[in-house]
Amino acid sequence: MTSAALIGVPDVTEFELNAWIGLRLAAVEHALSSWVTADAPQGLTHSAPAQLVAAMRYAVLDGGKRLRPLLVLAAHEAVCAAQGDASFDAAMHAACAVELIHAYSLVHDDMPCMDNDVLRRGKPTVHVQFGEAGALLAGDALQALAFELLTPQDGSVPEATQARLCALLARAAGSAGMAGGQAIDLASVGLPLTESQLREMHELKTGALLQASVMMGAQCGAPDARAVAALQIYGSAIGLAFQVVDDILDVTADSSILGKTAGKDAENHKPTYVSLLGLEASQAYAQRLLVQALSALDGSGLAQTRALRALADMVVNRAH
Amino acid sequence: MTSAALIGVPDVTEFELNAWIGLRLAAVEHALSSWVTADAPQGLTHSAPAQLVAAMRYAVLDGGKRLRPLLVLAAHEAVCAAQGDASFDAAMHAACAVELIHAYSLVHDDMPCMDNDVLRRGKPTVHVQFGEAGALLAGDALQALAFELLTPQDGSVPEATQARLCALLARAAGSAGMAGGQAIDLASVGLPLTESQLREMHELKTGALLQASVMMGAQCGAPDARAVAALQIYGSAIGLAFQVVDDILDVTADSSILGKTAGKDAENHKPTYVSLLGLEASQAYAQRLLVQALSALDGSGLAQTRALRALADMVVNRAH
Repeated sequence: MTSAALIGVPDVTEFELNAWIGLRLAAVEHALSSWVTADAPQGLTHSAPAQLVAAMRYAVLDGGKRLRPLLVLAAHEAVCAAQGDASFDAAMHAACAVELIHAYSLVHDDMPCMDNDVLRRGKPTVHVQFGEAGALLAGDALQALAFELLTPQDGSVPEATQARLCALLARAAGSAGMAGGQAIDLASVGLPLTESQLREMHELKTGALLQASVMMGAQCGAPDARAVAALQIYGSAIGLAFQVVDDILDVTADSSILGKTAGKDAENHKPTYVSLLGLEASQAYAQRLLVQALSALDGSGLAQTRALRALADMVVNRAH
Repeated sequence: MTSAALIGVPDVTEFELNAWIGLRLAAVEHALSSWVTADAPQGLTHSAPAQLVAAMRYAVLDGGKRLRPLLVLAAHEAVCAAQGDASFDAAMHAACAVELIHAYSLVHDDMPCMDNDVLRRGKPTVHVQFGEAGALLAGDALQALAFELLTPQDGSVPEATQARLCALLARAAGSAGMAGGQAIDLASVGLPLTESQLREMHELKTGALLQASVMMGAQCGAPDARAVAALQIYGSAIGLAFQVVDDILDVTADSSILGKTAGKDAENHKPTYVSLLGLEASQAYAQRLLVQALSALDGSGLAQTRALRALADMVVNRAH
């Protein structure tokens, strides 16, 4: 019995997580593959150069857990369960946009001037495959494409929703979000951080985009204030838990299972939860954050939270 | 007498371009300085790390002609002259957002893996001053900040306008716009391009963002179809003219006047209008494009086009 079953995730016979994820992953992969192309966007006469698009597709397709898109879709389902599929198009655009931001951050993060990593998801990194300039431009173009996806010109997403989604994503990606967290990370190598400094870094670097995924999914519908507050706590808790578990896996998992080079943090003298709290205390901390996320959902007033609960369990109890 | 006076720009006694530009430049500089800061954006509890913000401010402030913001404001004035100042806030947000995209592209373009330039606007480039990783992140964060500026949470810009501005900017910055043009540029070094291939490259690399500046300014108001069509021709013509003149100045101007290293194109075996058409034919081409831009305004049905006319003249007849 998993810890999730102990603390309130419905039994798999009641809610088949694998089937839920499988359907949505297929839809996300299909959408990403359709949208990361050389086709000229509506309103422009030019199409994108083939080599750039090849690097963008290489960075985005055939890999990744798609956790952020799944969070978007789960939060959308929680808020819009009673509203039918009217806003599903918006949620799928949001899901893919968040994944593009995540993908671009990995491309830039792997570059020689940053982490200088050559292996990602079991494949050579983008700059190894397409050169440094190619990786730089592919990342830049993926960030722009995220905002293109949030503003489709075919009437599928109301303009007010487009604006709210752009606002959430821009703030989560920017200097007080993901990019800011990476800057702190970079400046912290080899420095002794306190737990609160480490948490601050991760809340920006990883947490902001994970939390934005939840809030963007919710904003595709019309969440009430109680639901918004609960989802903010949920998003914040699993955002932090994700990083704590990442630090744990860097110590306990093999590169072959991780799909990236294990043990890099210690090698690079990066501060981690494991180096600060120890392995066992880090594992206990991750479980406490899971409980916190699930408790927030209990008080959300939302009826359909099964997918959000299951994803929270997956974040904390994953093996890679 | 300048060529502009010959072909229809109002006399300076009638329209004082320097005063018009001076007022707006001061407002743009003030807005950029207020908005590129470490303040936590509304809805987020974190602020941006100081070192990252320092690199972003270094990249944006105290330099640059601000041509793109001026185009936004001039196009806004052309469309909204009769509507008063109700949409001026939107136009100022749009003006600064476009400039942030331009600034980030320069930061990344100057990096060692791209043009490897050490001098920009008479100062050391961002990666020289803040390191390569610092420049990479500052550029990334500036792109995100552009979309933050387009989606202010204080009610100053209607959500429908926010959505349209984000749509225009994302497409102009992305793989079928600026980033795509840079990818073609990179792949074209040392290759013999035809004039149509060279134009395609520049329409993406520089033209898309200049044209977007014009269209974003217009979209802050409610332009009719005739005005939109005319402004698209105007934007396209001055976008191309800008690059033709850039190529001319790379040959004819000193580094000290340009504020960047002159003669780089020939040194890097980059195809240019001058290398393809010769100097005199390039100069004649730029003048033809100016006439085309001004003619489009004649048929626009817009009353207040004096600033757009004067800026077109400035683009073509500038000395740096």
